[in-house]
Amino acid sequence: MNTLTIYGDMRSGNCLKVLWLVRDLGLAYVWREIDVFSGETRSEAFLGLNPAGQVPAVQFEDGRVLAQSNAILLNLAEAHASRLLPKHPDLRAKVYEWLFWEQYSHEPCIAVARADLRWRGKQKLDPDLAARGRRALARLEMQLYTSDFLVGEQISLADLALVAYTRVAHEGGFDLSEFPNISHWIGRVEAELKLEPVEAAA
Amino acid sequence: MNTLTIYGDMRSGNCLKVLWLVRDLGLAYVWREIDVFSGETRSEAFLGLNPAGQVPAVQFEDGRVLAQSNAILLNLAEAHASRLLPKHPDLRAKVYEWLFWEQYSHEPCIAVARADLRWRGKQKLDPDLAARGRRALARLEMQLYTSDFLVGEQISLADLALVAYTRVAHEGGFDLSEFPNISHWIGRVEAELKLEPVEAAA
Repeated sequence: MNTLTIYGDMRSGNCLKVLWLVRDLGLAYVWREIDVFSGETRSEAFLGLNPAGQVPAVQFEDGRVLAQSNAILLNLAEAHASRLLPKHPDLRAKVYEWLFWEQYSHEPCIAVARADLRWRGKQKLDPDLAARGRRALARLEMQLYTSDFLVGEQISLADLALVAYTRVAHEGGFDLSEFPNISHWIGRVEAELKLEPVEAAA
Repeated sequence: MNTLTIYGDMRSGNCLKVLWLVRDLGLAYVWREIDVFSGETRSEAFLGLNPAGQVPAVQFEDGRVLAQSNAILLNLAEAHASRLLPKHPDLRAKVYEWLFWEQYSHEPCIAVARADLRWRGKQKLDPDLAARGRRALARLEMQLYTSDFLVGEQISLADLALVAYTRVAHEGGFDLSEFPNISHWIGRVEAELKLEPVEAAA
C-alpha cells in the first residue's frame, strides 16, 4: 500500500483540509510537522520540496510532490473517487468555484485574522481585514440560508475546505453567533467528516 | 449552438483568461462589459448573478452561472476536451497547483500593483506588495529556467492563467527585463494562443 507523506502544520486549516480528506478516504499517511511561524517553510530543505515555500505539500511514494491545499484535495478526490467530489460536471464546477473563492476571498481574511491575533501578537484587527472577513462570512451565511451544503444536496470538498477556517473564525475575532446558518452547517460538516468539535472561545 | 455570455472587464487579466480559452475552443460567446472600478460588480443586478460581486462570471444558455476565472477555465476545458488541460492525472494536478498558486500568491501582488498604479492613482507601490510580487516572478523565472511551459512539455491552462497578469506586470512597476525566461515564455504563450503582444511601458 502506498503511503502518502503530508508536510503540514497542525494549526493550519489549509493543512488540516488535506488530513481530513486523507482520513475520509482511508489512505495510509505519515504526517511531518512543519512549523510555519519559525521559518521552516523557507528552509533550503523545504524549498527543495516546494519552491513556493508553503504548506501543505504532499509527497507520493514515487517522489512526486504536490502543493496547494485545494489542488491536493482535487487530485486525491479524483484519484480515489471520493464521495466529496460530485460526478456531475455542473456540480463539480461549483466545487471549483468555491475552492477558488475560499483561497481568494475567505482564507486571506479569516485565516490571516486568526494568525494575527493568536500567533503574531496583534492586539486588534485591521478594520479593513475585519470588514472583508465579515463580508466573506455573510456570503456563506446567505448561501446556507437556502441549502444544507454549499454545492447540491450533499457534502463536498467545498464544505470541507470552507469549514477549515470558518470553524475557528472566533479565534480571529469574528462572532459566529451572528451567523446561525453557518453554525449549523459547521456541525453538519463536522459530523459528516467525524471531526472533533472546536471549543468556542470563552 | 449554445452561446456563452461572459461578464467581464477588458482591463482585467482574470476576465481575459476566460476570453482567451473561449476563443481557443472556438465557442460562440457574447461579451458584456462590466466596469470594476465604478462599483458595477456591487450593483443589485450583478450581485443577483454572482453574489461574490466579482468578474469574470459566465452564464450558460440554461441560466447556470459560474464565477471565479480559474473555475471557469477548468469547467470549460473539461466540457470541451481542451488541449490546455492535460489528460494525465499527475499533470492535471500540477495545473491545479499553479492555478491556486496564481490566485493566492501571484494575482494579489502582480494584478493589485498594476491596478494601484494605473487606476487607483497611487504614485508608488507599497514595498511589501512589491517584494511579494518580485518573489512570485522569481519563482516563475526559476521554473521556466528548466522548462518551456509550466506543466509538462506543452502549453496548459497554467500558462494561460499565469501569463494574463505577468505580461502586463510592467504596468505595476515590475521590470520584466530582469526575468529573461519569463519574457521568452510570454512570447511562446502569446504565439500559442494567438494573442496580440502587449506594448511594453515606455
